[in-house]
Amino acid sequence: MDYPAPLAILIDELRRLPGVGPKSAQRIAFHLLRLCERCNAIADQALCSVCRDPGRSEKLICVVEEPHNLLSVERTRDFRGRYHVLHGALSPLQGVGPEELKLAGLLERARGGEVEEVILATSPTVEGETTAAYIASQLRPMRIRVTRIAMGVPVGSDLEWADEATMARAMEGRREY
Amino acid sequence: MDYPAPLAILIDELRRLPGVGPKSAQRIAFHLLRLCERCNAIADQALCSVCRDPGRSEKLICVVEEPHNLLSVERTRDFRGRYHVLHGALSPLQGVGPEELKLAGLLERARGGEVEEVILATSPTVEGETTAAYIASQLRPMRIRVTRIAMGVPVGSDLEWADEATMARAMEGRREY
Repeated sequence: MDYPAPLAILIDELRRLPGVGPKSAQRIAFHLLRLCERCNAIADQALCSVCRDPGRSEKLICVVEEPHNLLSVERTRDFRGRYHVLHGALSPLQGVGPEELKLAGLLERARGGEVEEVILATSPTVEGETTAAYIASQLRPMRIRVTRIAMGVPVGSDLEWADEATMARAMEGRREY
Repeated sequence: MDYPAPLAILIDELRRLPGVGPKSAQRIAFHLLRLCERCNAIADQALCSVCRDPGRSEKLICVVEEPHNLLSVERTRDFRGRYHVLHGALSPLQGVGPEELKLAGLLERARGGEVEEVILATSPTVEGETTAAYIASQLRPMRIRVTRIAMGVPVGSDLEWADEATMARAMEGRREY
């Protein structure tokens, strides 16, 4: 899945403005566009294309920080659930608390009874980990499986370049062959 | 664990030769040095320091391609088992078959009865995966747990930079939070 055509066009147009690079153009476009009423992904209607797709299941929700993270997961072509976009990550140092994130909708969906698993696909950074821990604590009282994406060595990379923390996770997270 | 002092000195001296960079110096040093009779790691005696250490367990063997991969695992400070260094990886295209690797010693150790788990910590490259699959097939008849290091997003990285294959592994390999 790539960006919907109207969004791609908007980003291209924004890039023509002086001093606006590809990253800024993307951020401005997301700011200008409407968000899905259910999952906060970029939408051109009330619901985004994933939430409208009858082939996608509400039983499995993948939580991501930003709209472009959703595209990373979509590109794997393996995921048939839906999303929830937080539009940020917790950062006590930068004053970003739970109120600054789009969290209420996720908890509401989780309470709805249809959701069976929530995959926490926030980045493996300090902010992403803090966010994952917070959401997990909020979901704990509900009967929902809460999972975290695997950390480890990236596919195609030489082990030589793995840093200590990543190598430790790769060893600790080893699986039956 | 860093390189033993004699090895570090040898590498430093080799680097003084014309046209020899840090990588070449490391390779030449490994070529000149003796290997542990049990695990093929760099050794300054018949057995390497890990194989001599009574605090390390032969129940758990971590298989790596090259001596420097062993250092990556040691730096995590979490691993209390022993190693087996293959000195290469299978590469049918480059004519590297099982006979070119130091594999016989591993199978002998596995047959010895003390080994309970073999961690396949070859690189997540085509060669490393091929090697892991081959070793797993050799160990299958024995009653030994065979595991593979986790592939996924590296610790500290932004999800944005994860390629499709890595993201797919991170999703597929997700774990209970």
